[in-house]
Formats: sequence, structure tokens, C-alpha cells
Amino acid sequence: MALPDTTEDTQGFGLASVNPDLASERLTASFSVPRLTAVLDGGAERTRLRRAVVDVIESDPVFSRENQYFQSQNERYEAAVRKAVHVRKKMQEMGWSEDGPESVYVYRALSGDVAFLLHRVFMRSISVLGSDKQVAKWIPLASEYQLIGSYAQTELGHGTYLQGLETTAVFDISTQEFILNTPTISAMKWWPGDMGRSATHTVVFAQLYIQGKCYGVHPFIVQIRSLQDHSLCPGVIAGDIGPKMNFEHIDNGYLMLKNVRIPRENMLNKFCEVQPDGTYIRRGSQKINYFTMTSVRVSLISDEVILPLMKACTIAIRYSVVRRQSKLKPGEEEAKILDYQTQQEKLLPQLAAAYAFHFINNYLHELFNRGYREIQGRNFDSLPELHAFSSGFKAMVTQYCTSGLEICLRACGGHGYSLLSGLPSLYTKILASCIYEGENTILLLQTARFLIKCFRAASAGQSVPPSVTYLAAMKPGKCTAKDKLDFLSPDIYTEAYQHAAIRLISSTAAKLQDLIQSGVERHEAWNQCTVQLVQAAKAHCHYITVKNFVETVEKLENTAGIQNIMKHLCDLFALHGIFSNAGIFLHDGYITGAQMDMVTASYLDLLGIIRKDAVPLVDAFDFTDKNLNSALGSYDGQVYQRLYEWARKAPTNKQISPAYEKYLKPLLHNKLSKL
Amino acid sequence: MALPDTTEDTQGFGLASVNPDLASERLTASFSVPRLTAVLDGGAERTRLRRAVVDVIESDPVFSRENQYFQSQNERYEAAVRKAVHVRKKMQEMGWSEDGPESVYVYRALSGDVAFLLHRVFMRSISVLGSDKQVAKWIPLASEYQLIGSYAQTELGHGTYLQGLETTAVFDISTQEFILNTPTISAMKWWPGDMGRSATHTVVFAQLYIQGKCYGVHPFIVQIRSLQDHSLCPGVIAGDIGPKMNFEHIDNGYLMLKNVRIPRENMLNKFCEVQPDGTYIRRGSQKINYFTMTSVRVSLISDEVILPLMKACTIAIRYSVVRRQSKLKPGEEEAKILDYQTQQEKLLPQLAAAYAFHFINNYLHELFNRGYREIQGRNFDSLPELHAFSSGFKAMVTQYCTSGLEICLRACGGHGYSLLSGLPSLYTKILASCIYEGENTILLLQTARFLIKCFRAASAGQSVPPSVTYLAAMKPGKCTAKDKLDFLSPDIYTEAYQHAAIRLISSTAAKLQDLIQSGVERHEAWNQCTVQLVQAAKAHCHYITVKNFVETVEKLENTAGIQNIMKHLCDLFALHGIFSNAGIFLHDGYITGAQMDMVTASYLDLLGIIRKDAVPLVDAFDFTDKNLNSALGSYDGQVYQRLYEWARKAPTNKQISPAYEKYLKPLLHNKLSKL
Repeated sequence: MALPDTTEDTQGFGLASVNPDLASERLTASFSVPRLTAVLDGGAERTRLRRAVVDVIESDPVFSRENQYFQSQNERYEAAVRKAVHVRKKMQEMGWSEDGPESVYVYRALSGDVAFLLHRVFMRSISVLGSDKQVAKWIPLASEYQLIGSYAQTELGHGTYLQGLETTAVFDISTQEFILNTPTISAMKWWPGDMGRSATHTVVFAQLYIQGKCYGVHPFIVQIRSLQDHSLCPGVIAGDIGPKMNFEHIDNGYLMLKNVRIPRENMLNKFCEVQPDGTYIRRGSQKINYFTMTSVRVSLISDEVILPLMKACTIAIRYSVVRRQSKLKPGEEEAKILDYQTQQEKLLPQLAAAYAFHFINNYLHELFNRGYREIQGRNFDSLPELHAFSSGFKAMVTQYCTSGLEICLRACGGHGYSLLSGLPSLYTKILASCIYEGENTILLLQTARFLIKCFRAASAGQSVPPSVTYLAAMKPGKCTAKDKLDFLSPDIYTEAYQHAAIRLISSTAAKLQDLIQSGVERHEAWNQCTVQLVQAAKAHCHYITVKNFVETVEKLENTAGIQNIMKHLCDLFALHGIFSNAGIFLHDGYITGAQMDMVTASYLDLLGIIRKDAVPLVDAFDFTDKNLNSALGSYDGQVYQRLYEWARKAPTNKQISPAYEKYLKPLLHNKLSKL
Repeated sequence: MALPDTTEDTQGFGLASVNPDLASERLTASFSVPRLTAVLDGGAERTRLRRAVVDVIESDPVFSRENQYFQSQNERYEAAVRKAVHVRKKMQEMGWSEDGPESVYVYRALSGDVAFLLHRVFMRSISVLGSDKQVAKWIPLASEYQLIGSYAQTELGHGTYLQGLETTAVFDISTQEFILNTPTISAMKWWPGDMGRSATHTVVFAQLYIQGKCYGVHPFIVQIRSLQDHSLCPGVIAGDIGPKMNFEHIDNGYLMLKNVRIPRENMLNKFCEVQPDGTYIRRGSQKINYFTMTSVRVSLISDEVILPLMKACTIAIRYSVVRRQSKLKPGEEEAKILDYQTQQEKLLPQLAAAYAFHFINNYLHELFNRGYREIQGRNFDSLPELHAFSSGFKAMVTQYCTSGLEICLRACGGHGYSLLSGLPSLYTKILASCIYEGENTILLLQTARFLIKCFRAASAGQSVPPSVTYLAAMKPGKCTAKDKLDFLSPDIYTEAYQHAAIRLISSTAAKLQDLIQSGVERHEAWNQCTVQLVQAAKAHCHYITVKNFVETVEKLENTAGIQNIMKHLCDLFALHGIFSNAGIFLHDGYITGAQMDMVTASYLDLLGIIRKDAVPLVDAFDFTDKNLNSALGSYDGQVYQRLYEWARKAPTNKQISPAYEKYLKPLLHNKLSKL
């Protein structure tokens, strides 16, 4: 490759051609990449639609993410607002509705770098919790962006435990108003997106008081900024909560209310109402609120968690066949780093996990849609299972993908640490998913509570939801594998996962029972079992994911090499899990040490097999270069050229630092320019 | 607590008083906090000196880190240069030398936020690799900051494998000069600190060519910027590599050289020289280079890795007794989150690890100092052990502390994710330590190579270095623990660790041997064992760390409760390791499933015991609030007040965003200010 001359002309860098080391990886795919892409999209027709939407978004300069890594928090915010306003216009132009199939692809193409996502939550909460009259008043205004909404639930001192919220709404019969107050600093609303600088209105969750009596937390529509000049309304203190690890483009905000009065009609009153005389009326089921939280959790897993891991795998795997380092064999040229077993062991299990989670996410959506239809028919029976499922999987998938993304970042060495690789921002964003929409430990404990309950019911011969019927099937047997090839049998490893899950759930249930029987109070006994309950819930989710991967592979088309390569990935996902959590399987001797050596041998063999298809497997995710926004991960593999091109554009290279005149020049006071 | 009025007067927030929930934690310490601080410092005298230095630095406004989380990359760089220039002046004023004991405390008080750290590496490399004449010329100039040096080793396409560097230095006999060139884009120097914007000189590592023959990589002093106006010298292209996850204050740079000529005298020539007629002469041992790398690795572990974990523990544990969330017992007030077993299980093992690593770091320094004395006496025998030790521990400690820091961050929920908590910047900085100064996987494989060699020697009855004599002591026995209390016996758990390390090393050595005997080529056999070799190297380091912790505790003063609490932490560190890596211990039945249940029980019991002393144990680290720079972690525990105070200072709250006029106003075109 030619080096540019000192005028920094980089025309000769050949960005148009594909790096030959990367190109060669594409010649030997064991399967059809377009066919696999279609499988992932849910059909070739969907792939075409997705690509058409991506083209429209990416060809519009307003949506460009170029230079994004150089922007300040203020610049990112401004760009996000510009995009939010423009995307609405664009979708109208194209005739795409917010509920249509294109909408999903639009937001994916934007990679979440857009404002007013909480405006959508504001609208959803009014639709779900508001009366017909309220919906008729507020939804058109919000749809037309004649106001900008936010959703103010979390407080500075209160997150998960909603009953602990401190904001108050006192009903004043004389004026027919609610008076909202932030009684302490820990009651300040904190974190709501779009609230720090943008929102004119917000849904505030507050403790309702009528004539001195508290009726618990309720939602209220509160205007916080003027529609004329955007100034804060009287009694409102609001602002931005400052810098975070990511989400610089979102104005997460704080909000204090000091005797802010709103009309009685602003309490969202589909399920409960305060009548003019102060009578409190509750109507209908509140279980639907429960379902809203579940729906948010299910919807975020794909875009906010699985897609980022897929992107990270694409970046790290493409880079790992371009990067050469040290010699694998003396006398040969330096080796592609993906040819080292340790590099394969870092990246390929993450790739397998990305596929595993894609498929379990499909399963979760089916379960959810079925549940939704039942609920519309006033049947709430599936809610506990759905809640347990969505909680556990949100926790497992976010945790797994966050770790996986960190591994991808570190596997790219120093260049992975540069923002220009795209990996740091993927990591700092996915990390938040472990915390928001339910902190993972708390979610896993909710799943565990469901599992313990079902285990007891199943043990007593009562019926339990379909996903946990296996709890009744505790068999005392041992793993029957005789050699390493037996561990490529889905029955063998699925049963091992099932056995481990049952063992952990049953032994923790027994410990809990023992503690209570020995006189420990119930809540204290529960606390003393929580570390093990979390383990049990994870084991359950892991088992279901493996089982679902196996069943998905069985149903796949047996053409174009698809089923074959997916079977390898499924085996890898399963054996990686056994290898990395060996203690769980060895504990009661279900798998022996000798069998664990077979697991290890098969696992390491699989790395070598999947290595050959690693690049086609990430190509099948079908990300555009603009969407990856990574100097390391582009389709052409021109890693070094792109790093250099992008670095030169950094603002640090656009100005002489004042530090020179102020601090360096007085030091470097040589008479000679050269020593 | 009173809420401020709407003028945002926050005087009433009571920042001066200590949060009562935190204060109460300090009343019941089972040990003397000042005594433990003295143990950590290496004596009360050292504590006094450290505090005196910290006072001097923190009382000087030039060194302030206030508002740091709001600064841009350019602002951070400027502040770092200002501090670097000022710190030199300050140390001269105080009469502190760069080699004196105060110097360490100065840089710790600055938390690394200072420029020209590579200038010190530049000086060190000249001192080590330069002739007396070169030292006499360059060191005074560098000491007086009449030039600013950098250290240009890593290239865009070449990191770990130094022989692969592509930059060339061709000797031109006719002019008695070296001609330096960057022949390809991957040969560009990339990452060197202080090089992007500051340095006037750098040590360039390049392939030496004399009359067409390559003599391998050598160091050359190259001037890159004018001392008069700081412009780039002819033939030099240099700049900043752009944004990274952290280190915004450092101008990591790129450098291309196009026929840059330097005099023959600029090749550092203590160990090899090019004579005027082109004759190449090598003299002395090159092993000393090896030792320089080892010394850097040893020196960074304390300040860049262990101290950040100690800070993170301090922040997360103090916050976890201030934060209350949900009810542990019905009817009671919300519980401190540190009273939940799951929160204890997140944080307390990190606290134990911070102590374990502090002590192993002391051990490493002793080993290193002894080795240094031997080397000065021309005895290089201890080098392989030192190299293996420093490599393995650098990898283990950075990996462990990075994971631990992420756990601390996530354990603080949403507030941990705010930059104002101080945790994100600690995390993004420590993450780099897994990559720089030797990528961890490569380092662990170097340790593994040493272990395999020693294992074979020990098996053959040959003598091996002291730290690995245990490899000869493979005993077939089983763990003798009969109940959970037995696992509080250091002999029991230390032997378990020893057994596991030997088993992993010996089984991998056997696999390697089998592969080679079955005809697999030696390098390929090695590659096929690397995943297991990494495991074996980690197990060795883990064992040595546990053993050293045990021995340290035995030697501690048995007064003021110190030995007692340290014994608990040592037990916790050891049992956490067995609990989390159960498979390694269960694999060959050394520990049975029933015994693993005892480990778990003792481990969970210890969490409850150490919980009581958690706050005193982090207080003993003796960080000032300014050093922690965390809204969550201050000594007074006024978490919410400080978050709010700091957030209000964010630049996003100081200006009306142009986004309002440009994008929002045209949308919010209501005639009314209120809906």
C-alpha cells in the first residue's frame, strides 16, 4: 500500500477495495449468507423492506452520524432534536406510520440517536391509563408535537420500589385542583429522558392525598414549560442531570414541584378517579399496568441489547482477520489474530450467543403476543409467567450481552479502546440496559419467586405454566455421554441444563424451607437465600435459551447449509455455557470430571470449525457501514486507512491548543529550532 | 431535610453534617481504622507524610479537579499541561525530588490527570539505553523541560510483536545520518502519549538497515517539532489520534516520517552502535530491556489498578448504606441496600480483593527490589521468574479489578452510571490497563510457558525458582474439611488452591505432550492448548495471592482488631474464589459437592460478618473527598444533595440550547402558554 506524501493526501489509500485478508474469508462460506439474513429477518420480503428503509434514512444527510464521536453533549442533544423533528416529517412523506413495520427499521437505522423517545412513552401511558376523554384531548396534541411529553416516575432517592415515591398530589376540593409538591430532596424526579431541556409536559407519579388520607401512587399530567417561550412554569424547577457514560444526546432531567396546581381532570383516570366531592373511586383491573412494564422490557431486548452485541461481533471478527500479530508458525508471515485459539474463544461464543438470543427473543415475542390476545379477551392467567419470563430474560440477556460486548472491545486491543472503533459507545450504552427498566438482580429475584412457587406447586402435583412443567420431572440420573462426540447431541446437553436448573431450584427451595422451619422469619430466610436464588433463576433462563435454540435449529430449512451452521452455533452456545459454569454441572456428579474433559474437547473443536465461517456469520447480520459507524468494522476491512482518516478529523487536530502559548512556549525557550 | 425554595437556594441542604445512616456505621467498627490505615501505608510515619503531600496538592487551586466531568477533550488536555508545568514548580518549591517518597504521593493526589507522563518514559529510556555521552547531553535538557519527549514504539498495525515493527532507519555513510521512514500506513506510530500535540522529541523504534542488511529494531532520538514555534519538522506528519474511552487529557498521537534525517549520534548506543564506516557493534546484555518492561508493569499495578478499585469500593459501599430501597421486613422503613445479601455479594468480595491485591503488590515489589539488587551485581538468574510473575499478576490483577469496578458501578444503579459518581471514569481508565503494557492473554501465556517449563523441570527433579517449588509437590489427596467451619482454616483452602493449580498445569502439560507425540507440530499443539494454559496461569496467580494473603495476616499485629478483620477478609477472598470457580475444584473430586455446599455456607456467613465493618474498611483507605471526586462517595454521605449541586453546574444547564429556537419553537406554535 502506498504511503501518502507529506501534503497528507490520502487518495492513494484505496478505501474502495476490500482488504484481501477479509475478502478471502468470504470465498469459503459453508452456507448462503443471503439465506441466513432472510432467516434472521423473518423472510426475504422483510429483508427487502428493511433495506429499503435503511436506504431512505442513510441517504438523508440530516440523519448522518459522521463525526458523532467528536461531538459534545450539547451538540449531540441538538442533533438528536433535529433528527426527531426530521424523522416525523420523513415518515409522513414516505407514508410510514408509527405502528407500521417500517417504523422499527427507521429507529434501528437511527441507532437510537434521536430525541423524544420519552414523548412516545408519555403518549403510551396516556393511551393505557387515560380515560377516553383524556385520550381524545392529549393524544392529538402530542401526535402533532404541539407539546413534548416526558414520563416522571423515578426519583433521586427512589427507583425500583414505587410505593416509596415521595412526591405528593393533594386534592383541594375548594378549587378542584391537585397541588403537587416535592417534599424532600430525595423526592426530586431524576433521570426522566427529554425532561431536562425539551419537555413541556410530563406524567408525574405522586402519592395521592384526599382530605389527609393517602391513596397510593397515581399518574398526573403536569405542564412544566411554557408553550410560548419555553420558560419553566411557576413552581417548577427543572434541568439536566449532567453527563453520563452515554446517552449524551438525551436530556435526562430533574424536576422539583413547589405547590404546582393542576386541574382535577389531569389525573389519568381510566382505572381510578377522584370525584368533585373528594370521593375516590377505583375501577377495573390494575394488572394491565403490570403488562405495560412487561411490554417495554420485551421490546427493548432486541434493539438495545441483541443488535449491539451483533454489531460488536461484526466489528471484532472482521478486525480479527485483518489484524495480524506475531507468528503462529516460525518462518511464516504474522498470523491473523482470529487464528489464535484464545481469540476464537473470546469472540465465537459471543457470536453464538447473539444468535441464541435472537431466537429466544422471537420466542418471547410469540409468548407475549399470545398473552396480549388473551388479555384482550379479559384472561389474565398468563401474566405471572410472562412477567417472570420477561424479567428473567431481560436480566440474563442484558448481562450476557454486556459482558460479551466488553470481551469484543478488549479483543480488539488498543484500537478497540478508541471511540472510532464504535465499540466504546456500544458498550457504555448496553451497560445501561442492565440497570434501566428493572435492575437485573431484582428482576432475577422476581423470576426466582415465580420458580419457587411453581416448583412447590409442581411437587405437589398441581398444574403449572407450560415453560416450567419440567420442574416436576426431576430425574436422579447421570449424564450418559461416553465420548466427546456425544456432547454434540442436543438431547445430552439440553438434559444437562435441565438437570442443573432443577437441582438449583429444588436445593434453594429446600434451604428456604429449612430456614423457616428452624425459626428464621420468612423475609429473613428469603434474604439469606437470594444469592442462590439468583443462580437458580439464571440457570432456568439458560436452560430455556438452549432448549429454544435446539428447537429452532430443528425447524430450520435444511438447505443452503443453514441448518448445519446453526447446529454448530447451537452446540457452541450450549457447550460454552457448560465449560464456563462447570461447577453447576459437576456439583452432584451429573457430569463427571472425565465427561467435563469431553465437553472441553468438543467445545475447543467447535471453535476451530466455526472459525472458518466467522466472517460470513457476521456478514449475515447485514449491517451497513453507516450503521456500524466503526473504523474497524467496515465491510471493506480497510481498518488502518479509516482510523487515520477519521482521526485527522478530530477537533483536537483542528486548532492549535492555547496550552502551547500559555504553558509550553515559556518553557521551550531555546534559541535554536533544532537540538 | 428542608427543600430549597424556587430560587434554587441550596444553603439549607446541610452538606456539612454527616448523613446519619452513614455515621452510625462508624460507631461499631471492630478494629481501629487509623491503625489499619497505617498498616496499608507501611507505618504511621508514612501516613503522616502522605497526608502532608495530599494537603499541599489539594490546597492548590491549579490542581483542582472540580468540574472535570464537564470538560471537553481540549479542555482536559489544557488542564493536564497546566498541571504538569505547575507540579514541577511546586515540587521544586517544596524541595521534593522526582525520586523521593513524596513524588509517589504527588502523582496519586493528581489521580494521573497530568500531562508529560511519557516525557518521563522518554527520560528513562535514554538513561537505560543511552551511552554516558547521550545521557549527559539529553537528560539535563529534558529535566529542565527545554524539550518535551515521547516514546514511539507501537505502530498502527503492530503492538505486542516488536520484531514486526515496520518503521525503517537506513544508515547513510556519506552523510553519517540515519534516514527514517514510515514505509506503509500500518507502520505509522500510533498511540504514544504526549506525541499528538506536545512533544518536540521522541524515541522512535525502527528497523536498522546498514548497506541493505537489516539489524532489527533499535531506538533513535528524533526531533519532531520546532523548539521555536512548535511547527512540525520537515518530513514529519503528526497529530492526535482522536477520542478514546478515557485519557482525554493525554494527546495520544500518530507520527509518520518521510526521509527524516538524524545524526549518527542519535541512535541510543549503550548496547549497540553503528560506527562511522557502517560497522555494527553489539555489546553487553540486552536482558536489561526485558527488566525495564517488567519494572513498568510492576509500578503501574498499585496506582493504576488497585487504587481505582479501592476508590470504587469506597464509593459503592458508602452509597449502599445511604441508599434505602424496598423493605427487608414488612412494616419497617426501607432498608439500606447493603443489608441485602445480593448487594453484599456484589461489593464485599471486591473489597476483600482490594486488600488481597494490596498485599500481593507489596510482595511483588519486594521480589522486584531483590531482583534489581541481583541484576546490579550482574546476576540475571531471577529474571525469568520476575518476568513470569509480573506478567501473570499484571494480567490477573487488571482483569479482576476491572470486573470488580464494573460490579461496583452497576451496584450503584442509575446513579453509578452518572459521570458525577466518579465510577464511569474509574472504569473506563482501569479497562485500558487490561490492554496496555502487554495484552493480558499474551501475558498469561508467557506465565504459562514459564510454568510448563518449571513443571517439567520439577517433575524431572531439577531445581526451580522458589515461587514454583510447589509444582513438585503434587499430592493425590482429597480436601479433608468435615464442616463449614473447616473452610475458615487457611490450610484447608490454601491447599485446595495449590491442588487446583497443579492439576491444571500438569493436565495441560500432559495434553501438550500427547499432541506433540501424536504428530501435531509443536507450535500448533501449543495453540491448541492456549485456552487451558490461560486457565492454568490464572490458577497459579490466584493460589499465590491467597497464600500471600494468609502469610500476611499471620504476620500482622494482633492488636486493635486488625488481624481479626484481615483474617475475615482473607477467608472471604479465598472462599469467594472457590465459590465462583467451583468447577476447577470439583473437577477431580478434590472438593466434593457436599463440601462445596460448606464453602457456600461459610462464604455467605462471612458476607454478613464483614458487612458490619464494611464502612470502616473503606474509611481505612483514607481517600479525601477531592481525590474520590464522587457525588456518591464523599465522607459525609450527603449523596442526593451533592448530585443535585453538581448537576446544576453542568454546561447543559448554563445555556439555552440553540435547538429550541431552531427546532422546537416552530413546532410548539400554540397561542396559549398553558394547555
